[in-house]
Amino acid sequence: MAYELYYWPTIQGRGEFVRLALEEAGADYTDVARERGVDAMLSLWDAQDTSRPPFAPPFLKHGTKLIGQTAAILHCLGTKHGLAPKEEGARLWTHQLQLTIADLVNEVHDTHHPLSAELYYEEQKREAALRAKHFRESRLLKFLGWFEQVLERNPRGRSHLVGARLTYADLSLFQVVEGLRYAFPMATERATARCPCVVALNAAVAQRPRVASYLASPRRIPFSEEDIFRSYPELDG
Amino acid sequence: MAYELYYWPTIQGRGEFVRLALEEAGADYTDVARERGVDAMLSLWDAQDTSRPPFAPPFLKHGTKLIGQTAAILHCLGTKHGLAPKEEGARLWTHQLQLTIADLVNEVHDTHHPLSAELYYEEQKREAALRAKHFRESRLLKFLGWFEQVLERNPRGRSHLVGARLTYADLSLFQVVEGLRYAFPMATERATARCPCVVALNAAVAQRPRVASYLASPRRIPFSEEDIFRSYPELDG
Repeated sequence: MAYELYYWPTIQGRGEFVRLALEEAGADYTDVARERGVDAMLSLWDAQDTSRPPFAPPFLKHGTKLIGQTAAILHCLGTKHGLAPKEEGARLWTHQLQLTIADLVNEVHDTHHPLSAELYYEEQKREAALRAKHFRESRLLKFLGWFEQVLERNPRGRSHLVGARLTYADLSLFQVVEGLRYAFPMATERATARCPCVVALNAAVAQRPRVASYLASPRRIPFSEEDIFRSYPELDG
Repeated sequence: MAYELYYWPTIQGRGEFVRLALEEAGADYTDVARERGVDAMLSLWDAQDTSRPPFAPPFLKHGTKLIGQTAAILHCLGTKHGLAPKEEGARLWTHQLQLTIADLVNEVHDTHHPLSAELYYEEQKREAALRAKHFRESRLLKFLGWFEQVLERNPRGRSHLVGARLTYADLSLFQVVEGLRYAFPMATERATARCPCVVALNAAVAQRPRVASYLASPRRIPFSEEDIFRSYPELDG
């Protein structure tokens, strides 16, 4: 049975972490709003008869099961598709890594929307400049440096965040580095110069056949200034 | 074997969600930084020999196991102590609820620190006023209304978020309502007037013997303006 992914059809956003896992798994899935229009997503989101309504996209449907929250979706998918360790402790550690990526993604979003997601960026540019400066100077290397440390300390080697095989956390860290390079090219270059394992992991993931094929396909939505990672040169430095 | 909870010793913060679960479970635990000083927390946080270093407090140690990320800690504790359903789908739904609470808590934090956690509130009061207005007018009822809907639609009744028994998600929603009432008394009163099930759940949790005993004890740190939920009258309305 095919998965149905529900996410905004014109951005990578948080849905991209799920898309990458589905693609690497070779899973059969429909990207519902892209294929059937955004109303198909909204009608399930607003459905009055779901006892477990999702709070926000992305959410994933598989048969009668509906699950929301990016990290929870990946926790499920990872187990089913060999993208997470089988051992419970390692599986939970993978999930912790994803939750920390979620924290990072929230902070990136707020660099261009520090006051309100309902105001345009142009209405909060001054505040965005201050928030982005804080992110670049205090948070970016703190996050990437922690992932570097996780890679360095992995008893099974520095090629993966957890164990000796690819997990969804590796895919997600790949995506974060791609996004950071798009949004903050100068600051990210400085930070990643101190994180060689993170850089190597990013490159290795990009070369995986299914990931490479996905990235080259029209299924990969380009980065844009409607998305979480936005290229505003005035926010880099 | 006793749990060791590592969290900042003078605030409720994100650690409070873990404290509430440990207290309701009647679990044997040490609140390490409160009992042995903050250095005892920092030394484990900074330890060079941990292969799974926590990114930030809270983290929980049980024997040789160390786990970070509030929602992941609760996911574990819930299963071990009967504060989460046994059935996998329901257990994951409980986790989703907690992840949405984590999102809400992040947004509350940013109402008083929209620019940088490293600046004082007094240095970002103007921006905090704007962010708090957005939170009160667009986000507060969106979150609480969603939890109300979850309670209304629970096939096992409106007394709990999941199933017919208390879960850690109920404890966490209790804590969020307490915090919101402290931080935004007027706005929360207006929002909760439309969320009777959320209000009833909050009252029911407060009356549980172990919770009531904890809240009346010196172990419960009072709310304060060093914490996530802060009472700044200028941010309410």
